[in-house]
This record gives sequence, C-alpha cells and structure tokens, in this order.
Amino acid sequence: MKSSEATRERIMQAATVEFAAYGIAGARVDRIARNAAGNKNLIYMYFGSKEQLFTTVLARHLTNVYDSIAFTPENLPDYAARLFDFVVDHPELIRLLAWFGLEQRDEWPVEPRANLDTKLKGIAKAQRDGIVAKDFTPAFLLTTVIALCSAWTVSNPLNQFIDPDALKHRATLRKATAKAVERLTR
Amino acid sequence: MKSSEATRERIMQAATVEFAAYGIAGARVDRIARNAAGNKNLIYMYFGSKEQLFTTVLARHLTNVYDSIAFTPENLPDYAARLFDFVVDHPELIRLLAWFGLEQRDEWPVEPRANLDTKLKGIAKAQRDGIVAKDFTPAFLLTTVIALCSAWTVSNPLNQFIDPDALKHRATLRKATAKAVERLTR
Repeated sequence: MKSSEATRERIMQAATVEFAAYGIAGARVDRIARNAAGNKNLIYMYFGSKEQLFTTVLARHLTNVYDSIAFTPENLPDYAARLFDFVVDHPELIRLLAWFGLEQRDEWPVEPRANLDTKLKGIAKAQRDGIVAKDFTPAFLLTTVIALCSAWTVSNPLNQFIDPDALKHRATLRKATAKAVERLTR
Repeated sequence: MKSSEATRERIMQAATVEFAAYGIAGARVDRIARNAAGNKNLIYMYFGSKEQLFTTVLARHLTNVYDSIAFTPENLPDYAARLFDFVVDHPELIRLLAWFGLEQRDEWPVEPRANLDTKLKGIAKAQRDGIVAKDFTPAFLLTTVIALCSAWTVSNPLNQFIDPDALKHRATLRKATAKAVERLTR
C-alpha cells in the first residue's frame, strides 16, 4: 500500500468512529485528523469537505454490507437472518445511516441506488416465478425486511425499553426475524 | 392560562422545532429562547438544562401518541394502521426519537416505560385468550409493529430510495402495513 493510500485509510477509519458517534454536524475534522495521525488540510485535500467525507464513509459501509450479504430474493427469510446478524455486529453502519436520515437525507451515493434497483427486480422475478407470494409489492417487502432486521438496533430506540435483554437471546431473535419475513413472503 | 404557563408552552413548542431539526447537541438554547420570545435564563429556570428540556419535550410527545392512539392488543392490525398514520403525520415524533436513540439512549422518562409494560401485558393476555397467535413473544410483536409502522419515516432512511413515491399511495401503504401485522398475529 502506498503511503497516501495508507493515510486515506487511516482517515476513513477515524472518520467512521467520529461520524458514528457524533453525526455530521457534530463531527470535528480536527479530531478525525488527530485520531488518524494526519492533518486537517490533508483531509480536505483528499475528501473535499466534512460532508463529502461523510458520504464517502457511508458509501463504503453500504458497499461493504452489499458485498458481505448476498441478496437471495428466492430465500428472503435466510437473507433476513444474515442481514440481522450483520446490522447487530456492525452498529456503526446503522448509526451512520441514522445520522444520514436526520442530517443529509437527500444526497445519496449513486452506487447503492443501483444496488437497490437490482434487489427490487430480484424480488419481482421471484414473485413471477411463484417463489415469493404476491401479497406485497417488492418495494414494500424490501423496506419491511430492512426495518425488521434493524428493529433491534438504534434505528428503533424503544426496543431496549421493551426488552432490554433481547440481544442476549440473539439466536431466538434471528429465528423470529426470519420467521416474520417468511410470513410475509409465503 | 397563567402567564408563566403560556411561556413554558411557547418554550416547549420552540424546543420541539429546534430539537427535531438539530438534535440534542446541535440544538441552541438561545435560538429556542428567541423563537419562544423568551430568554435563556427562563429556560434554565423552568427546565434545568438543555438535556432535561429535551427529555421533557420527548416525554410529552410520547405521552401524546399514547393518549391519541388507543392500544388494542385484540386487534393489532388496526392499531398498526392508526400508528402508521400517526407517525407519518407527526414526523417530529420520529425525529425526536431518532435523536434520542443516537444521543441519549440510556435515560428515559419513567411514564412511557410503564406504558410499554401495559402494552406487553395486553398482548400476552390476547395470546392467552387465543386472539393473537403465540408464534412470537409479546416483546417481539410490539417491537416489530413499531418498526413496521415507522418503516416509511426517517427511522428507515433507505425507504425513500427504494420507493420515493411510497407515501403518495398512503392508503395502500397503510393497508399493507396492517396486513403485514395480521400475518404475524394470526
């Protein structure tokens, strides 16, 4: 890895921690620079602005989930079980998304949009093939599956008051999530 | 209404707008004071700190949803339809909750906690009475219903990229949400 790539990588890591904790407005570029053992000017040179750095970080985390969790429209309950595990194991992803929703909702990295379209087409095909029931639209199913899988994260903040111990019984919760998705797709 | 009550009320209104837009860290007490035609010292005198003001505002909005939407454990699909409408009509509630989740997750006003317990007991009773299926626990059902009803708000920020026009077909979406809940409870 070239030195400049290593520096970019350190900045991305520090930015992930900073943005996940404080959001976009609350993040401090000098704190990111300090934690990345870099300097502020380098961050602006590499990434443009604080907002663009956030977009770059979020895009990477979205790409990471898309690369890590294969989308299986022919088996949405199994996809849900794997997505559930991923979001529970990567709280920073859901926190970045939550800040995005509150602070920057209208801008969006292009790539994931294309990825969402592929998913919707996959569900539509599975419905045409008779594998997924047609009771709900592809858009409703995809949105709902994401909501169900992240229901136990910060995106649904009442969860810890409903059942503070829920994630201690993670296997049970994963199974129930997959079963809930099955009910919507069969 | 006494003058001091009217002032408190104006502060609460301005604080709702400010916190919904900027969150806890981002909110400015002097902006709240200006918009409430009051002064900063009065806010600290009435509410303690900015954090306590946020808690007071959130508690009122939660109490408002609990008072407005009767919980009907014997008919969770209908409850879901009404909760869906409420959260869509009151974006400030979901934004306040989202900021709460990101910034202040561990503190919680006592009253809504008691209200959540009542809801869980209601679902358990409906299950014992054979009205709600026992495939999912009361905690899973309540958490899931809330997640499904708010799937089209800022709490699930991918929704607008999956279907930007979803809320233009609100009746369809409400019906699908109620049907999804029915699938989990019958």
